[in-house]
Amino acid sequence: MSATITSLEAVDLRFPTSTELDGSDAMNPDPDYSAATCVLRTSEDGLAGHGMTFTIGRGNEICVRAIEAFAPLVVGRSLDEIEAAPGAFWSALAGDSQLRWLGPDKGAVHLGMAAVVNAVWDLLAKRAGKPLWKYVADQPSEWLVTALDLRHVTDYLSADEALALLRTGEAGAGEREAKLRAEGYPAYTTSAGWLGYPEEKIRALCTEAIDAGWDALKIKVGRDVEDDVRRLAVVREAIGPDRIMMIDANQVWEVDEAIEWMGRLAPFDPYWIEEPVSPDDVLGHRRIKEAVAPIRVATGEHAMNRVLWKQFFQAEAVDVCQLDGCRLGGVNEVLVVLLMAKKAGVPVCPHAGGVGLCEIVQHLSMIDYVRVSGELEGRRTEHAGHLHEHFVDPIRIERGRYLAPELPGFSQEYLTESVDAFRYPDGAYWRDRP
Amino acid sequence: MSATITSLEAVDLRFPTSTELDGSDAMNPDPDYSAATCVLRTSEDGLAGHGMTFTIGRGNEICVRAIEAFAPLVVGRSLDEIEAAPGAFWSALAGDSQLRWLGPDKGAVHLGMAAVVNAVWDLLAKRAGKPLWKYVADQPSEWLVTALDLRHVTDYLSADEALALLRTGEAGAGEREAKLRAEGYPAYTTSAGWLGYPEEKIRALCTEAIDAGWDALKIKVGRDVEDDVRRLAVVREAIGPDRIMMIDANQVWEVDEAIEWMGRLAPFDPYWIEEPVSPDDVLGHRRIKEAVAPIRVATGEHAMNRVLWKQFFQAEAVDVCQLDGCRLGGVNEVLVVLLMAKKAGVPVCPHAGGVGLCEIVQHLSMIDYVRVSGELEGRRTEHAGHLHEHFVDPIRIERGRYLAPELPGFSQEYLTESVDAFRYPDGAYWRDRP
Repeated sequence: MSATITSLEAVDLRFPTSTELDGSDAMNPDPDYSAATCVLRTSEDGLAGHGMTFTIGRGNEICVRAIEAFAPLVVGRSLDEIEAAPGAFWSALAGDSQLRWLGPDKGAVHLGMAAVVNAVWDLLAKRAGKPLWKYVADQPSEWLVTALDLRHVTDYLSADEALALLRTGEAGAGEREAKLRAEGYPAYTTSAGWLGYPEEKIRALCTEAIDAGWDALKIKVGRDVEDDVRRLAVVREAIGPDRIMMIDANQVWEVDEAIEWMGRLAPFDPYWIEEPVSPDDVLGHRRIKEAVAPIRVATGEHAMNRVLWKQFFQAEAVDVCQLDGCRLGGVNEVLVVLLMAKKAGVPVCPHAGGVGLCEIVQHLSMIDYVRVSGELEGRRTEHAGHLHEHFVDPIRIERGRYLAPELPGFSQEYLTESVDAFRYPDGAYWRDRP
Repeated sequence: MSATITSLEAVDLRFPTSTELDGSDAMNPDPDYSAATCVLRTSEDGLAGHGMTFTIGRGNEICVRAIEAFAPLVVGRSLDEIEAAPGAFWSALAGDSQLRWLGPDKGAVHLGMAAVVNAVWDLLAKRAGKPLWKYVADQPSEWLVTALDLRHVTDYLSADEALALLRTGEAGAGEREAKLRAEGYPAYTTSAGWLGYPEEKIRALCTEAIDAGWDALKIKVGRDVEDDVRRLAVVREAIGPDRIMMIDANQVWEVDEAIEWMGRLAPFDPYWIEEPVSPDDVLGHRRIKEAVAPIRVATGEHAMNRVLWKQFFQAEAVDVCQLDGCRLGGVNEVLVVLLMAKKAGVPVCPHAGGVGLCEIVQHLSMIDYVRVSGELEGRRTEHAGHLHEHFVDPIRIERGRYLAPELPGFSQEYLTESVDAFRYPDGAYWRDRP
């Protein structure tokens, strides 16, 4: 008998990061990193699937409700049935004829759906006894193509073309997997450059990062241009001319403002400018990209779905794809974007940080390397050092690289004691706070 | 003393329209027209603001939660304070540093915000003793420009340009108002052509519509091309060669499919094709527009925010702007889109139907005519005949035109007995259903 999903539970977890200014940037000054989690129990003793979506505090309860709304579409399904047609499963959720109205494919419902979909992939990988990246990388191309929902993107990527791209990813996969296991996957760190940090703290963190083996780090910009000039000078001096410095404006600029502001920051040789403007603005990103080249334009942590990504690629509007593993609707939609990025020749450097995002995207980057793009050139996955202690299977970083996860599943399960402490509003921390 | 907002209440209302196939289309086969409503009580006896957002059933509870999430940002504000800086009020809601993560400006949070924002405009209009359209139309341009949040669209519309456009709308406003009061605002009807209706019912409804004075009506297409050909032939025969027939695919096609399919439907002389593909697909709409001209391309009921509209206008990707008064974040964002549409020379024909949407958009079209575009040419506001009996101030239609609302406010208040019957899940109808 195949295991059947017997229940769906959603939990509101919030971590009080705003008290330390961890994660502060020009748009998000006071985040409380939060997760709306989805736990799927099954008919098989001890087999449970864990997925999550990420928010920064208020509104997390809305995502909890969104996760719960999918229960009737998930509970009662067998894993065999889902694994036989994973794309049809995804389409049934994304295409629910009433829930779809709240999107389509965007906002709270899509965030909630990502948690549900990723919990299902966690189940599939656990049942196979493999970490998610390995579970996906081992699949034949003919199966992977059945995991895709190409609705509304076939004018850029047809099913036939997707299959052909997946087949080119088969060659050398074994060698890439061996290399990945031996050397890890390249990363960069965002932990040094939050806007809320004073200059001395930034300098100390840069030195610390270099000592830990990082050769690429990201700095927040966009609140005040003179302050940015001063801080980038500090960082460039601390890391030297050859290490990589990314900068991130978190959507605070207007299109023309972004172009002007970047003129002031260009002398510090930034590797990319991230989220210069609204995440929805394909045409705006294209204008900025043309104006600031050779500095790269990156975006993606708020890029809502495959249709937006299709346009970024069609318009050649971005140089770097920073897809988010729980902003997009989970693994199925991520695979569609990975394939479109491969076709476009745009490197994927997923968004992480927050809580749980590093745990998620490490798998996605490894899938991209082993089984889709086959490339490391220009790829670096984001890393931030916070909150990993709450996970059953936390990330492992060594000398600036993610080590390949080894435990079966998708690494999104929180420790029971963390849930007890940070469940909102009734966990021990929130109940007892002043 | 200025009235102060003292409480926010959100209610889940659902009407069982799926039992009759009212509202069925190719993407939404079984909608239960629903409203998540926002009621703002004030310190002034009897003064309450009513706003709503529209959904089609499941997920309405998510919008209720979204409305509730804005309570801390609204309760305690005085109406004087809001009226002194209506754009700053809007920005405070849209820019909440944590809620914003769930959008920005899209999905359930934005839908919920629309209900809250429109309830506030209802309060302002009621306090002034005017219907909303008249309250806005009477404002000086210098005040109207302070109601706008132009973030992320200034590369298309600057504040100076917005003010200049508003000033051109002052000339002749009095005459247009008089004409509006005398003749009403032109509309078209969607009540005849739902996919779920049999041919004879469609033929009878066409005849009935013509008898009632309609000279423009809309037919749903996209489930089966041969069926569409048959049904459009029935309609064209029933209404004759000179009346207007719009068609609506509700997002079911791929870009290339839309172009092919429209080749089969073109002989029936459709006035526009509505929602051919994903509502997010600016570049796709542009390709379709170029291919199907002179048939117009229309979209908007799912167009999430001003940044998407900016791109539709910049790319010249649509011929008709079907903005939605509670998909966009309420009156403030609607004004931004009306002004951009005026600049682009694109007529605004708002999306309505459902429940409450007609009540909302009649005001918006009248604002557009009296105070923004100053035009009726190419403008028709959608109308569907369902569920108006639930409103305190329902729309009034005469010979295919909306009569100007006369009661103070924004017309979104439901009758107490309707709330008691259709509140979900504890209203009398839902409690007692089999």
